[in-house]
Amino acid sequence: MPSAGSPIVVLDSGLGGLTVVRAIRQVLPAEDIVYFGDTARLPYGSKSAATVTNFVRQIITYLYPLDPKHVVIACNTATALSMATIRSEFPDLNISGVIEPGARAAALAAGRRQRPVIGIIGTEATIRSRAYEQAIIRRRQLAKVFALPTPLLAPIIEDGRAVEDPLVQIALKQYLQPLMAKAINVLVLGCTHYPIYREAISAMVGNNVAVIDSADQCAQDVQRRLGSANLQRAGGAPGALRCFVTDNSPRFAMLAARFLGLEIEPPTWVSTDELHALASNSEPSAPEPMELRAAV
Amino acid sequence: MPSAGSPIVVLDSGLGGLTVVRAIRQVLPAEDIVYFGDTARLPYGSKSAATVTNFVRQIITYLYPLDPKHVVIACNTATALSMATIRSEFPDLNISGVIEPGARAAALAAGRRQRPVIGIIGTEATIRSRAYEQAIIRRRQLAKVFALPTPLLAPIIEDGRAVEDPLVQIALKQYLQPLMAKAINVLVLGCTHYPIYREAISAMVGNNVAVIDSADQCAQDVQRRLGSANLQRAGGAPGALRCFVTDNSPRFAMLAARFLGLEIEPPTWVSTDELHALASNSEPSAPEPMELRAAV
Repeated sequence: MPSAGSPIVVLDSGLGGLTVVRAIRQVLPAEDIVYFGDTARLPYGSKSAATVTNFVRQIITYLYPLDPKHVVIACNTATALSMATIRSEFPDLNISGVIEPGARAAALAAGRRQRPVIGIIGTEATIRSRAYEQAIIRRRQLAKVFALPTPLLAPIIEDGRAVEDPLVQIALKQYLQPLMAKAINVLVLGCTHYPIYREAISAMVGNNVAVIDSADQCAQDVQRRLGSANLQRAGGAPGALRCFVTDNSPRFAMLAARFLGLEIEPPTWVSTDELHALASNSEPSAPEPMELRAAV
Repeated sequence: MPSAGSPIVVLDSGLGGLTVVRAIRQVLPAEDIVYFGDTARLPYGSKSAATVTNFVRQIITYLYPLDPKHVVIACNTATALSMATIRSEFPDLNISGVIEPGARAAALAAGRRQRPVIGIIGTEATIRSRAYEQAIIRRRQLAKVFALPTPLLAPIIEDGRAVEDPLVQIALKQYLQPLMAKAINVLVLGCTHYPIYREAISAMVGNNVAVIDSADQCAQDVQRRLGSANLQRAGGAPGALRCFVTDNSPRFAMLAARFLGLEIEPPTWVSTDELHALASNSEPSAPEPMELRAAV
């Protein structure tokens, strides 16, 4: 059974989920966080539910021996495609994602409008899943929802492009103008990469459109859940952050600093062979012992 | 021992390698081709040598029972990062890639210039490997080589964007202008996706720059190698094409038609679990029997 001292696991296809880690550390600075980025197999956003669910299952099986008090699927695509299956396969874990908190915030931000118009941008797979749409409509039956796949935004952000770059400006305009033409009241950033361009997006859609950052909402949701389960760690020393990745590419440091907003220790590499081997055993077995409080 | 009737295996991180299949079918229409696209783990271009080599090893182990007369690594990144290791691990297979043929063609296209200036565009990993640079310098010691990573081109092409799209135009300009400023004589398209925009690239760099398409060069190289090994299949009936993919996403049909220039039968799905399990056995074992001549 996890205790207040157990870590929070945050997993993602790559490094975009570090925007969620950043948000969690702001509201819960004392928590130990274990981050897992599936950098060997990223991105998830163009892939199928079966493939993405398989990858997420492997990662959770690998981290299971850490006895996490909470698991955050910090990737909109993985939340959209795998959450229901993963929750049913790991009934003893507390698992949350980024979509329900984002949808709740979008419904709230719509205010007293009877027929709010809500735009969503995300990966091809997230949009195709209609997960946001359904989560919003459950809360606001009369909302008009326009969901738009914006598949180039994540690669552009991973390329480290400044928002002033003409290519970034054109991409944002091409993607946002069709939504602005629908007179949206709320825009959901349905991918953990997108907060990197949040200010420019807000400026483009204008002050009258509430921009919902699913990373922020997800962090507040984790805080609420730990609070009601009485599992928040008592303050004092800042929590540790340990990162695992499936590919050790030179991009890690650059992207991690960009998404997290600070430099971090080099990550631990986990081979996808090990993930596959573990997941093919019926009983999840322990990976090598982890020195959790070593880093940052 | 493979015979003239054995298939040619063409493998790639995804579907870009279908431009190589298209080129092979033009010069060798009677050959049976087995294509393998690692769509669950694409792209390779931002990943490490260890990871990419591991994936390529798994794919070749899986297809080994087909007794291929030739294996083409139809991905510049995989060629750059894994070719030497893979050749040493499968000494009984004839394996070729896209980089040596591209470099040879670039050296030829440089003509009688004493100090030709050669530009190369490719993924981050291909460029970082310096494989093209070295292969060109081996042939033309006095060449000046400028190699530029163009990491957004493949995602933009996979997004299905027409070349007239303002975002495509900006990307091409941003990437090509620094090379044009170096007064290049030759430009190597060092990624199997790029021939999709070949005409626009040629128009932009101007008539004086020879544009080398590594897919075309690779196909001619395969033809030469089969010819000298006396393994060309006698003409007559057109060869079969069978496709395997590790993820069955809805993008397959759209992208395959775009890269191959014709509609093809739905691909066979191979799970990455199966690839990992096979590769972890010492002895490669046979996958399910393959009906090679069924599909177009």
